[in-house]
Amino acid sequence: MSTPRIHGIIGYTITPFSANGEQLDLDALGRSIDRLIDSGVHAIAPLGSTGEGAYLSDAEWDQVSEFSIRHVAKRVPTIVSVSDLTTAKAVRRARFAERHGADVVMVLPASYWKLSAAEILAHYQAIGASIGVPIMLYNNPATSGTDLPVELILKIFHAVENVTMVKESTGDIQRMHQLHLLGEGQVPFYNGCNPLALEAFAAGAAGWCTAAPNLIPELNLALYQAVLANDLNQARALFYRQLPLLDFILKGGLPTTIKAGLDLTGLPVGEPRRPLFALDDAGRHQLQQLLNTLG
Amino acid sequence: MSTPRIHGIIGYTITPFSANGEQLDLDALGRSIDRLIDSGVHAIAPLGSTGEGAYLSDAEWDQVSEFSIRHVAKRVPTIVSVSDLTTAKAVRRARFAERHGADVVMVLPASYWKLSAAEILAHYQAIGASIGVPIMLYNNPATSGTDLPVELILKIFHAVENVTMVKESTGDIQRMHQLHLLGEGQVPFYNGCNPLALEAFAAGAAGWCTAAPNLIPELNLALYQAVLANDLNQARALFYRQLPLLDFILKGGLPTTIKAGLDLTGLPVGEPRRPLFALDDAGRHQLQQLLNTLG
Amino acid sequence: MSTPRIHGIIGYTITPFSANGEQLDLDALGRSIDRLIDSGVHAIAPLGSTGEGAYLSDAEWDQVSEFSIRHVAKRVPTIVSVSDLTTAKAVRRARFAERHGADVVMVLPASYWKLSAAEILAHYQAIGASIGVPIMLYNNPATSGTDLPVELILKIFHAVENVTMVKESTGDIQRMHQLHLLGEGQVPFYNGCNPLALEAFAAGAAGWCTAAPNLIPELNLALYQAVLANDLNQARALFYRQLPLLDFILKGGLPTTIKAGLDLTGLPVGEPRRPLFALDDAGRHQLQQLLNTLG
Amino acid sequence: MSTPRIHGIIGYTITPFSANGEQLDLDALGRSIDRLIDSGVHAIAPLGSTGEGAYLSDAEWDQVSEFSIRHVAKRVPTIVSVSDLTTAKAVRRARFAERHGADVVMVLPASYWKLSAAEILAHYQAIGASIGVPIMLYNNPATSGTDLPVELILKIFHAVENVTMVKESTGDIQRMHQLHLLGEGQVPFYNGCNPLALEAFAAGAAGWCTAAPNLIPELNLALYQAVLANDLNQARALFYRQLPLLDFILKGGLPTTIKAGLDLTGLPVGEPRRPLFALDDAGRHQLQQLLNTLG
Repeated sequence: MSTPRIHGIIGYTITPFSANGEQLDLDALGRSIDRLIDSGVHAIAPLGSTGEGAYLSDAEWDQVSEFSIRHVAKRVPTIVSVSDLTTAKAVRRARFAERHGADVVMVLPASYWKLSAAEILAHYQAIGASIGVPIMLYNNPATSGTDLPVELILKIFHAVENVTMVKESTGDIQRMHQLHLLGEGQVPFYNGCNPLALEAFAAGAAGWCTAAPNLIPELNLALYQAVLANDLNQARALFYRQLPLLDFILKGGLPTTIKAGLDLTGLPVGEPRRPLFALDDAGRHQLQQLLNTLG
Repeated sequence: MSTPRIHGIIGYTITPFSANGEQLDLDALGRSIDRLIDSGVHAIAPLGSTGEGAYLSDAEWDQVSEFSIRHVAKRVPTIVSVSDLTTAKAVRRARFAERHGADVVMVLPASYWKLSAAEILAHYQAIGASIGVPIMLYNNPATSGTDLPVELILKIFHAVENVTMVKESTGDIQRMHQLHLLGEGQVPFYNGCNPLALEAFAAGAAGWCTAAPNLIPELNLALYQAVLANDLNQARALFYRQLPLLDFILKGGLPTTIKAGLDLTGLPVGEPRRPLFALDDAGRHQLQQLLNTLG
Repeated sequence: MSTPRIHGIIGYTITPFSANGEQLDLDALGRSIDRLIDSGVHAIAPLGSTGEGAYLSDAEWDQVSEFSIRHVAKRVPTIVSVSDLTTAKAVRRARFAERHGADVVMVLPASYWKLSAAEILAHYQAIGASIGVPIMLYNNPATSGTDLPVELILKIFHAVENVTMVKESTGDIQRMHQLHLLGEGQVPFYNGCNPLALEAFAAGAAGWCTAAPNLIPELNLALYQAVLANDLNQARALFYRQLPLLDFILKGGLPTTIKAGLDLTGLPVGEPRRPLFALDDAGRHQLQQLLNTLG
Repeated sequence: MSTPRIHGIIGYTITPFSANGEQLDLDALGRSIDRLIDSGVHAIAPLGSTGEGAYLSDAEWDQVSEFSIRHVAKRVPTIVSVSDLTTAKAVRRARFAERHGADVVMVLPASYWKLSAAEILAHYQAIGASIGVPIMLYNNPATSGTDLPVELILKIFHAVENVTMVKESTGDIQRMHQLHLLGEGQVPFYNGCNPLALEAFAAGAAGWCTAAPNLIPELNLALYQAVLANDLNQARALFYRQLPLLDFILKGGLPTTIKAGLDLTGLPVGEPRRPLFALDDAGRHQLQQLLNTLG
């Protein structure tokens, strides 16, 4: 399989809704994708946590998936999150994404019930066997309820041919160290925890999956460039400059804060779906101030 | 509103599937409901965790919900879990269940994103306003990812008229103490943690929501009777007798172990849906031995 | 070895200091011991957490130990906490306590460094081999930093002849269940977590180690009597009556709150040692109100 | 106050004992100090966790403190850990260390009982008022049982004049970020968690407090030099090279593993005090192999 080299700043898309929250707003989605790509991100990742993938009906999920891939149009690689609660549904989504042109699919072992190691491995094997594109394995116990130890991640990496990348979002930098050591430097890992951006790059992460480029792409990209240039002092200064905003969007919930930030910067995309609230006035004010200082 | 008095042993139903896991097996569901009711349980709770509600399509959920309510046929109250990831979908399910005759709906504030207290309250308000039957508020951070502090539970209890019962499944008995003290003895609470059955009744729980009556209804009911009879020594002895089985079904995953146990006791109901595995041979052997000692 | 049957309400003593916190006030200690015994407690436990054992010099520890044992004078059994950071020091204290007439010694595996199972076992073996009186093994990870799993507790119980009792203070009732099940009902266990008093007795605890009898001995004893009388309803009512005070003394720190409570009830015993503060005015007011409602 | 600029690699000393564990071996201590200083460490920190300070009698503590300071003889700064369970004892140790020439004292708010923010602040104020040398505030909840939030650390930093440095050992890199952001870049912080060495320097730590220079000083110093040279790639490579050994000594307990490593490298220093065990044969073999690969 010819795997696209995924690296650098991988931008999440939001999923815009109409004013009453009921319809998709694909026009706004297209504009937000263009803005991300024009800003220079190295890849686009639709339908993840930030994209409220969990809150869409199956029909909506298909629409957003198909539209996003077509709209990106190979300008950069597209990494589609296809996680679902059953193996059958995740396989369906993975096939759908591949059929419509996804370069990579991302799989979080989301489950209602806690899964055993054997169940998790079989889940990845079933998805892997059903598609031909690479899989980015995604560990995020805070949202999936299941924490994959490094040993299990490596077992899956070696057992499933098209699992070729690992996204780590525990926020524990030691996991990346262990991926590097136990994986003998052969396992490309990606950071999914915004406030760990500097340290993940220091530890050798190949990329940073983040919603932040919707709001501050220059800073995100400059941090990555400083790392590529082996300039730690510059990377540190750039990281601390953007950290207050990274903390803010994480603490406030990514769909909530990113949608507010897009609105504040001229791209209205509606509110997140209930039970999630839109950012309140105090939050919007604080976000505006953060954006002003970084502008 | 005339609330049915919910108390005692509240039995969860499983959701039987055909051999390939793709079709519902409503005949088997009917038999499992009859078996529970014939054994003497005081209420039936379909579509909860044990019922793999999270793994059903919307159409399947509707079928199981309608069938279960109709099949129980008011022999005992039916408490239908209507939790869903968006408020709109949970409202839809709550209305569906009420329309088909549910006596109570159970609501876990399931969400992908961590919810604020205001978002959780609004979620219960929206559901409460859409139906006329009572709501059992359900707190179970291990499956929902959201832990409702006692203060928030009481706030919702007082703010939403038809939230009239609380099911607590943190496994922390101090939560029940605080519900009793801060609720001034006016908040009926139910235990959802099997290994806490004795202590929850000691602390004053009105009932025990459990999958165990699928396998050992006599012991479950006898424990409740001993509590009603104010016989602590008898309750303790009965609890310790059933605890190894309670620990086993919890540790092995309720759909997995209860389905195996039903099969071992003459009621085949298929396997849980992937990624969940059926109980393996060693587990089935251990379960059979536990059932033998209790038979 | 003839083991005294330790059961019921086991009262901790505080360690009174002079006004400047520098000298011991043994007269006040004697009065507080008399008050506990006169109230009916079934045993006295000096030099535990409540007794600020960790804040005494070795010479002070010896004085308090010797004085307490002599002053109790076999009216009830004395259980002396002899925990120390090294094995050699704990052995010294255990021998000292035995030589001066302690009926039982209590041993918490306190350590600065996290201990392995083998290190913990050797620690108990060394102490056990050095004395002839029974040892109450004490598990309290919140103060010792080391959590003893039930399996290790049972291993020590079976390997060290004079470890004949277990005090459990994790606050997790499941530990007591496991002690009962895995110990086949042969391991006497005692509760050291005040807000778990009702449930620990429900689960079969032989006794309750508590500082509360310094302030509300009648209620503590009445709860135990209700359990002995197999009257769960009465036990529950008595437990909820005293729970607000139990919560208060635990949350405020036992030396701090018990010393304030003794002062409020006519027995001045000085303040706890710095860095611990005495209870502030708001706390004293709240404590007085709690005592008034229970008086 | 003229504060010495503390930076770089700050080496912990062990405390050597005679064969039976009862006597101090000050000759061996002197040799271990010389070896550290000759290797190029930037400061020496006696009597910390690695130095088994918690396992010494007061008389022994005084001997080790006085000897260490005198033996270092200002070749590099000496930072003496003076933590003790009461404020009075910590003050005594701080004064003792200052009187004998310590450049800095390190204070962990060790306590048996959980301390309030006010109690912790008063503890630092009392120590600060009693001495004229700078204090390095030390946060390590794993050993002290008390976790100081960043806000409290900064409050103490601003309220107590001679608290001029912060050592952070939670292992959570976000604490250092917050110290930098909320401290507006004016609070020198030091890393006390070995596996976080790379990321702490990336985040701007002024130094690394570590026992590792007893065994691999060249690698520790080279990492710091690479950071000073702004060479992230070199720092990363050096970090991963030493990480297996850093993980090993942390996991095995620092006194246990460092004492074994000193013995394996020609400097016998006895065993740690019971209840701690010496490293077993399998561990010594593994450590020898790690040292061989790094030699």
